Amino acid sequence: MGKEFLKIKDPEDAQKIIAELPINKKVEKVPLDEAYKRVLAEDIYASINLPPFRRAAMDGYALQSKDTFHASEDEPVTLKNIGGVTAGQIPGGEVITGTCMEVSTGAPIPEGADAVVMIEYTEKKGENVLIFEGVALNANITNEGSDIMEGGLLLSQGALITSDKIGVLSAIGLEEVAVYTQPRVAVISTGNEIIKHHQSLEYGKIYDINSYTISNAVKSCGCIPIHSDIVKDDYDSLKSSIEKYKDADIIITSGGTSAGTGDNLRTVLDELGEVLIHGIAVKPGKPTIIGLIEDDGEEKIIFGLPGYPVSALMIFRVFITPFLRKIASLPDFEEERKLATLKISRRYISARGRRQYLLVKIKNNEAHPILKDSGAITSLAEADGYILIPKNVEIIEEGSEVDVYSLEIGL
Amino acid sequence: MGKEFLKIKDPEDAQKIIAELPINKKVEKVPLDEAYKRVLAEDIYASINLPPFRRAAMDGYALQSKDTFHASEDEPVTLKNIGGVTAGQIPGGEVITGTCMEVSTGAPIPEGADAVVMIEYTEKKGENVLIFEGVALNANITNEGSDIMEGGLLLSQGALITSDKIGVLSAIGLEEVAVYTQPRVAVISTGNEIIKHHQSLEYGKIYDINSYTISNAVKSCGCIPIHSDIVKDDYDSLKSSIEKYKDADIIITSGGTSAGTGDNLRTVLDELGEVLIHGIAVKPGKPTIIGLIEDDGEEKIIFGLPGYPVSALMIFRVFITPFLRKIASLPDFEEERKLATLKISRRYISARGRRQYLLVKIKNNEAHPILKDSGAITSLAEADGYILIPKNVEIIEEGSEVDVYSLEIGL
Repeated sequence: MGKEFLKIKDPEDAQKIIAELPINKKVEKVPLDEAYKRVLAEDIYASINLPPFRRAAMDGYALQSKDTFHASEDEPVTLKNIGGVTAGQIPGGEVITGTCMEVSTGAPIPEGADAVVMIEYTEKKGENVLIFEGVALNANITNEGSDIMEGGLLLSQGALITSDKIGVLSAIGLEEVAVYTQPRVAVISTGNEIIKHHQSLEYGKIYDINSYTISNAVKSCGCIPIHSDIVKDDYDSLKSSIEKYKDADIIITSGGTSAGTGDNLRTVLDELGEVLIHGIAVKPGKPTIIGLIEDDGEEKIIFGLPGYPVSALMIFRVFITPFLRKIASLPDFEEERKLATLKISRRYISARGRRQYLLVKIKNNEAHPILKDSGAITSLAEADGYILIPKNVEIIEEGSEVDVYSLEIGL
Repeated sequence: MGKEFLKIKDPEDAQKIIAELPINKKVEKVPLDEAYKRVLAEDIYASINLPPFRRAAMDGYALQSKDTFHASEDEPVTLKNIGGVTAGQIPGGEVITGTCMEVSTGAPIPEGADAVVMIEYTEKKGENVLIFEGVALNANITNEGSDIMEGGLLLSQGALITSDKIGVLSAIGLEEVAVYTQPRVAVISTGNEIIKHHQSLEYGKIYDINSYTISNAVKSCGCIPIHSDIVKDDYDSLKSSIEKYKDADIIITSGGTSAGTGDNLRTVLDELGEVLIHGIAVKPGKPTIIGLIEDDGEEKIIFGLPGYPVSALMIFRVFITPFLRKIASLPDFEEERKLATLKISRRYISARGRRQYLLVKIKNNEAHPILKDSGAITSLAEADGYILIPKNVEIIEEGSEVDVYSLEIGL
């Protein structure tokens, strides 16, 4: 494919292109212990009745309700106590008219009984029990299958397995469950100046930042980061690294997207596949690249982030987070997690003709713009969130209300 | 200690007692790769200048700014190009008056140069470069230490290590970091009727639910669950299980808190330590127990949840989640994560004299109360969140606005 002219995209158009990128979902079985925060890939039907047997909903006496019709505070009914059954036991007899059996909450109801009178309305008298209240048929009894009958739909495909939903799966004794496979995302930091943390910091070098920030941001999207080596910013190194990680579901690079670095990613993608976006009208992060390459007939998506840490993370947050959460099948997607609506602490002049994402610190119930360039690490240290300044807004006056969004959605 | 009469507590009083429970924080070092979503236990100071050297903020030419004072679109200045330096390289010469050196973003600024003119305002002409714009001293140069100087405070103790903060730690090449140890929480399901998932479901038995729901809810609070065996609901079993898990930071049991089950937890706690709360005026979950036991001079907290799954999870959510997040040192605690304010779909009559937590399903932009008892698993399947009905409110009329809160805060 030849290198074509690609017009810089408005963010809305970029988001539309990203939303239409190909998705390839896979399914795997995991033990219930490992299913937390995964997404159901199957409908779950009750394999048993719930509850599985007729049980007492209260502590008290199981009896025949008709025996209690005339019972009252003043004139209790006397029934013969034929024994007791607690939760987990099997009743040791049958309740017939004139008799009762002590039951604790969760115990099976003995044969013959059709109601439970609460312990508060009874009194033990030797072998007998006084009943001070009349009860209706089925009072304080939970019938077998009354919660759900065998075969009923318990949870639908697509449900996020939170701690409450895992309770539903455990109620039917499930040992493993089909969930969507977490997409594997290769994270590649490019740059001749970038070194690993165990290396000594020679003149002109800087420690790797983006593979740490992006790998962890990938986790918060329900995906699995594959932390790659650091790659030199030349055509051959980048190309062979991309080919090495082609078995990942997504590849995210950072650095090497601007003109001065030789535009290597663009060149590699033009050769191996197709560039869909080169440049988005936002600040920071304008020189973002999005492309597709083919691997064994399957299309793989490549996101090329700018090299500056703030730009890389902000583009990830705004453009890639929604997409990764979608391919991870996460439901009820919160596109923006709003932290607060606050007054801005000072007048701010925005980038002309570009939508701007501005990091802010929340202090004294105000949003304080962080006025540092995208290469500044301390802006990440200070930031509590970001605000969005539309393309057509050039000045935000001091005291204007702004919505502050979280840098991370979290799972 | 003798068994004393304990008055049922109002939820506000219970929350106050819980907030004052003893906390014992520990610290450990973890590799940066494993630091995500942990909490800093130390202040982090810059161990190097950031950036570590004077570098180009733009692609362009490094030069002496005074040489460009007269440069303009019409009358460019001509400088001799003495070479180039890209990011990660060491400049191969010194810039003197009348000369310039090509630099890419992130490259070290050569000796002698005091500004960078952007590539857009230049034109190569053989060995020379035409400069079409005057630049001021330090233009497009990021000075060594301009982001932060060695010794400056980067991040404070107590910061949650999100993906942006991990970028800050990686910028100084940190290989490991001191974080608060995640509290270990033993989760014990008690009940003679409860069986494990691989066991066959005999008459009168039910599958274990609470240890799954509570263990995973514990994870969402930044703590590590220790999934225990299922324990029989008798004094000896419960006592020996609690003694077995005394090395955990917290013990959470479920079941065995109501009168009919023999009140075993209460009896064990009275013997091993102290019962602080027995009964909270809420629905569901009234028979909740909170106590302390001593282990090697250290006080260990025991939460006794009711046995019904909905009651257990709701009490965990409302009373235990804030405490676990606090002992896990999680900052900026969101006590309640509000999902939405919605109209209630029908008239609802609440429990008299008790605060009620009512599960709701969100459908058609309305909150639909789930009208099932706390033993019903399907209420967990259907629930999207819960609403809180104050003690003094008995009736909520159809169409009233209610705040719906999430069952899980998430990390």
